[in-house]
Amino acid sequence: MAKILTGIQSTGTPHLGNILGAIIPAIKMANQSHEESYLFIANMHSLTQIKNKEILKNNTFTTAAAWLAFDLDPNKSCFYRQSDIPEVTELAWYLSCFFPYQRLKLAHSFKDKSENLKDVNSGLFSYPMLMSADILIYDANIVPVGKDQLQHLEMTRDVAARFNNLMGDTFIIPEAKIQGNSNYVTGTDGQKMSKSKNNIIDIFLDDKSLKKQIMKIQTKSLSVDEEKDPDDCNVFKLYKLIGEEENIKNLASRYRKGGIGYGESKEILYNEILNKFAKNREKFFKLMDDKEIVERLLTDGATKARVQAQKVLKRVRASIGY
Amino acid sequence: MAKILTGIQSTGTPHLGNILGAIIPAIKMANQSHEESYLFIANMHSLTQIKNKEILKNNTFTTAAAWLAFDLDPNKSCFYRQSDIPEVTELAWYLSCFFPYQRLKLAHSFKDKSENLKDVNSGLFSYPMLMSADILIYDANIVPVGKDQLQHLEMTRDVAARFNNLMGDTFIIPEAKIQGNSNYVTGTDGQKMSKSKNNIIDIFLDDKSLKKQIMKIQTKSLSVDEEKDPDDCNVFKLYKLIGEEENIKNLASRYRKGGIGYGESKEILYNEILNKFAKNREKFFKLMDDKEIVERLLTDGATKARVQAQKVLKRVRASIGY
Repeated sequence: MAKILTGIQSTGTPHLGNILGAIIPAIKMANQSHEESYLFIANMHSLTQIKNKEILKNNTFTTAAAWLAFDLDPNKSCFYRQSDIPEVTELAWYLSCFFPYQRLKLAHSFKDKSENLKDVNSGLFSYPMLMSADILIYDANIVPVGKDQLQHLEMTRDVAARFNNLMGDTFIIPEAKIQGNSNYVTGTDGQKMSKSKNNIIDIFLDDKSLKKQIMKIQTKSLSVDEEKDPDDCNVFKLYKLIGEEENIKNLASRYRKGGIGYGESKEILYNEILNKFAKNREKFFKLMDDKEIVERLLTDGATKARVQAQKVLKRVRASIGY
Repeated sequence: MAKILTGIQSTGTPHLGNILGAIIPAIKMANQSHEESYLFIANMHSLTQIKNKEILKNNTFTTAAAWLAFDLDPNKSCFYRQSDIPEVTELAWYLSCFFPYQRLKLAHSFKDKSENLKDVNSGLFSYPMLMSADILIYDANIVPVGKDQLQHLEMTRDVAARFNNLMGDTFIIPEAKIQGNSNYVTGTDGQKMSKSKNNIIDIFLDDKSLKKQIMKIQTKSLSVDEEKDPDDCNVFKLYKLIGEEENIKNLASRYRKGGIGYGESKEILYNEILNKFAKNREKFFKLMDDKEIVERLLTDGATKARVQAQKVLKRVRASIGY
């Protein structure tokens, strides 16, 4: 039985890009599959960027609530917080003793981050070893990754193979499952939606603030009457990702004919979001009002995950002779 | 009450340089003081250099046996293996998120090692964070260090202060206790005794092999009759560290007068080692024959140490909000 593992960033409330690009596909995979799934909130990773206890805590809750609001079934998957499995830090140390410093220096993600972030700390540098531990400690077979994360998985495979080679067969070498372009979601400025670019749509805002975000979507300056290319419009691009097929066609044809303004198309997008995500938003607000449920689900998930983590760690310690 | 903490390298059986320069002074400090002492065998550090389970295990035992053979009192100190307190790896991760990558790159020890070792792994690079965790997790107040390790302690103080500053008072800032030149022991080639220089005297060898090592000590080519400067002789330099004051004076005067050859002075040194360390060698051989005693003592030490480690880690997790 193949095990799927997915790490979830927790740098803030998941936005529409996260939801369409990561949450919905991952939950679909987890709920449909006969395979065991591990989904964890990478709150130890978040510490490389966030140095505020309340924000760290709150991000974990909003992230968990968002995943649960999209019907992640915690009975079918292990859904837990990274910090509840401190065994991964122990494994990360062992792995780091088997991975060349010079190779770690070549990690793209560190290069990118060290150019863009103010706080370039040692944790940011070592992070690929913690990520490798996150994967290897559950004997995960399959790790769905975007192209930008493929190098991290290559490092995981590499360090596992180096360890096996020197200390005897210990780790299962995981396979990447590369995710296509489905996870590309346009932001309000036309670039890929990303918190750092400040171009997100947060569907968990109250109606008024949500509408304000949608009204901010950048468009061309064409009058209502002019003909418009729908595929060249940020509003339409977003609508295309969530609308019904029939409605998408109709809207595209109205764009091409002319007679629809950006104000109206934004209104259509806003109503579609309210409509499509009504249940999810309701569930999210409910969970945020009762954090104890979230806390209990995460703790239960960690209890399940930890059994597996300790089993693998025991095997690793035996290989090292500890 | 001030707590003293000492980390013990375990890259092989401790040699005469380790014994005179580190073991005897540290045990004296631990046994005499009213302060709590923590002494641990840094076998997680060893993994940066040793990738063989049997050697790792054996080094830990010989190191522990050597310390116990020099009358370390495990009832007065916490004497334990680093790998029995995996909490330090968790703390090392947290600390690394608070320490600038660029500062870690400046560590002398990494620069030295990366120039001299073949296996320059990421663990070697991150090691100062693990060492900081080793110290901070026991609320240690005093860390006896040689001058070469002072920078590591500075890093520990620095990262603790950065954490306290951002997350609120959490760590006790440790003080270095700089050890003088007393830990300089001449090797058989006249350089500082060091395993990597292959110039050691291993007092835990059998008599015949020990004698062979002593006979290998490099000397000048002066005949028996010639007058000799005792302070310019590697054999005398070693004798001076272990002989009785009266005997040292006598030997020095025989050197100056002439009439003593290097063969004879080596014989004198050899007999002094056999005589002075007779009880220690006996105890060492006995412990190596009954590893279960060593295992039990280390396990008991870890049980005591772990209580303290978990207490501090809990405080750290509260500061982070985990």
